[in-house]
Amino acid sequence: MKLRPLGDRVVLKQSVAEETTKSGIVLPGQAKEKPQYAEVIEVGPGAVVDGKLVPMDVKVGDTVIYQKFAGSEVKLDDEEYIVIKQDSILAIVEK
Amino acid sequence: MKLRPLGDRVVLKQSVAEETTKSGIVLPGQAKEKPQYAEVIEVGPGAVVDGKLVPMDVKVGDTVIYQKFAGSEVKLDDEEYIVIKQDSILAIVEK
Amino acid sequence: MKLRPLGDRVVLKQSVAEETTKSGIVLPGQAKEKPQYAEVIEVGPGAVVDGKLVPMDVKVGDTVIYQKFAGSEVKLDDEEYIVIKQDSILAIVEK
Amino acid sequence: MKLRPLGDRVVLKQSVAEETTKSGIVLPGQAKEKPQYAEVIEVGPGAVVDGKLVPMDVKVGDTVIYQKFAGSEVKLDDEEYIVIKQDSILAIVEK
Amino acid sequence: MKLRPLGDRVVLKQSVAEETTKSGIVLPGQAKEKPQYAEVIEVGPGAVVDGKLVPMDVKVGDTVIYQKFAGSEVKLDDEEYIVIKQDSILAIVEK
Amino acid sequence: MKLRPLGDRVVLKQSVAEETTKSGIVLPGQAKEKPQYAEVIEVGPGAVVDGKLVPMDVKVGDTVIYQKFAGSEVKLDDEEYIVIKQDSILAIVEK
Amino acid sequence: MKLRPLGDRVVLKQSVAEETTKSGIVLPGQAKEKPQYAEVIEVGPGAVVDGKLVPMDVKVGDTVIYQKFAGSEVKLDDEEYIVIKQDSILAIVEK
Repeated sequence: MKLRPLGDRVVLKQSVAEETTKSGIVLPGQAKEKPQYAEVIEVGPGAVVDGKLVPMDVKVGDTVIYQKFAGSEVKLDDEEYIVIKQDSILAIVEK
Repeated sequence: MKLRPLGDRVVLKQSVAEETTKSGIVLPGQAKEKPQYAEVIEVGPGAVVDGKLVPMDVKVGDTVIYQKFAGSEVKLDDEEYIVIKQDSILAIVEK
Repeated sequence: MKLRPLGDRVVLKQSVAEETTKSGIVLPGQAKEKPQYAEVIEVGPGAVVDGKLVPMDVKVGDTVIYQKFAGSEVKLDDEEYIVIKQDSILAIVEK
Repeated sequence: MKLRPLGDRVVLKQSVAEETTKSGIVLPGQAKEKPQYAEVIEVGPGAVVDGKLVPMDVKVGDTVIYQKFAGSEVKLDDEEYIVIKQDSILAIVEK
Repeated sequence: MKLRPLGDRVVLKQSVAEETTKSGIVLPGQAKEKPQYAEVIEVGPGAVVDGKLVPMDVKVGDTVIYQKFAGSEVKLDDEEYIVIKQDSILAIVEK
Repeated sequence: MKLRPLGDRVVLKQSVAEETTKSGIVLPGQAKEKPQYAEVIEVGPGAVVDGKLVPMDVKVGDTVIYQKFAGSEVKLDDEEYIVIKQDSILAIVEK
Repeated sequence: MKLRPLGDRVVLKQSVAEETTKSGIVLPGQAKEKPQYAEVIEVGPGAVVDGKLVPMDVKVGDTVIYQKFAGSEVKLDDEEYIVIKQDSILAIVEK
């Protein structure tokens, strides 16, 4: 199963915050505050403004940071996703 | 009787969440939190913007996820439906 | 006396909810929660957008369901009506 | 003295609710809840939208019903009036 | 010193409510509730909409009634004025 | 250092309210309520509406009155300024 | 890693407020109230209005003051940044 977002929406998968203890053991997902980073999983076709399709700025595979409290959490096949309008994506993280 | 939604509204029928106990017995509809999945039952003609009809993105039979707390619950012939603007539909679930 | 609604407003008359007891006696209007169904009694000429009249989607005699808490209750000749903008009508009920 | 409303505003004079006691005596204005009916006393020239004057739908002498809590109460020569935008007038009452 | 209002703003000077006691003595300004009447003292050039100046409907010397709680009170040379957008002026009082 | 406001913003410097005691001594800035008068120190280039620059109505050196609670207080080189959109300026004070 | 802001967003790095004690020792970052000054680190491509890209007014390296409580705080490689719409930038500080 996969999600096909409508309009200028994007499906995000939150990156797991990894924390390393002093002894070097990696503790994934123990951070209390969720990170705002996420990977773009699906991209909608774009919004239609004045009869014209506005192309999207993000693409599948991008790492992005998004506005806190924006978007809707969705569960599919026991995985959690965020469906969010592209306008709530602040920036693309380049490596 | 059937519902003919106006404008860019859509009639949804919430999918029943099935839960399977360890012994394999299926317990439909016991989940406390309603799932956000629904089947599209009827689709309105679309909104008219600047005198032009904007065609709809969803069609009858689609499984969709929709925004929490959006839409109006409606009872018809003892069945419950949700009438919702298409803009409150987040994504189509593809199988 | 009759009401002539302005713009894209519609005058509705709420359908009386009939309940039948086990013995077959019909008890009209005992339902505590008012039904959201109503009959269209009068239809306004439509809204004017960018100098053009947008024709109405509902007509006199239609049975419609409308958004809760929308519209204004009005009393005329001891009858109660709802004056509501067409955009608050969710769907037409077809028989 | 008279009021000349600006734009798409209308001056209304609330109709006095007359109540007749069993003995036939008319008690004007004893109704606690004010009726929503009013007579149109003055009509503004209309709103200007995109440089064009939009003509008004109501005229002096019309009996109208208007939205509760809309408009401003104004006192002139010890008479009370309501100055209201035409968009808050729900319907014209035809006799 | 005088005030030159910007855009579609107007400078008003509230008329003093005069009250006459039984003995005929005039008590200006004792009324607790301020009257909503005011004289137009200065008129701005008008708002610019879509690059065009929209001319003003009120002129210096007009007596107007204005919306309660609208506008800003301003003190100049120990006199109090109200600077208000023309859209908050309800009607011109004609004598 | 100086501030170059963006768009249709203006930098204001609040005029000091001078109070003179009975003995003639001037006490600047003792007034509890700050005056709404200010001098225009810098003027932005103007807002761009529909691709066209809308020229500004105020100029450096103007004394203006502005809406209470509008604008942002800014400290530069130990001097306090107000950065405000021109739309929150009510009127120019002419001497 | 670097941030590429979307639309008319800008990435800011807050300037550290330096305070000098009487003995001349510089105490960076002890000020309780954060300064509103920041350096522009990255600039988005600009917003698209009516199909046209509106160029940005600020550039990388500018010192700007921005509206309190605007923008989103973001942490990248243990550095804190503010991602903000250009419209929330009040003025450029020129030296």
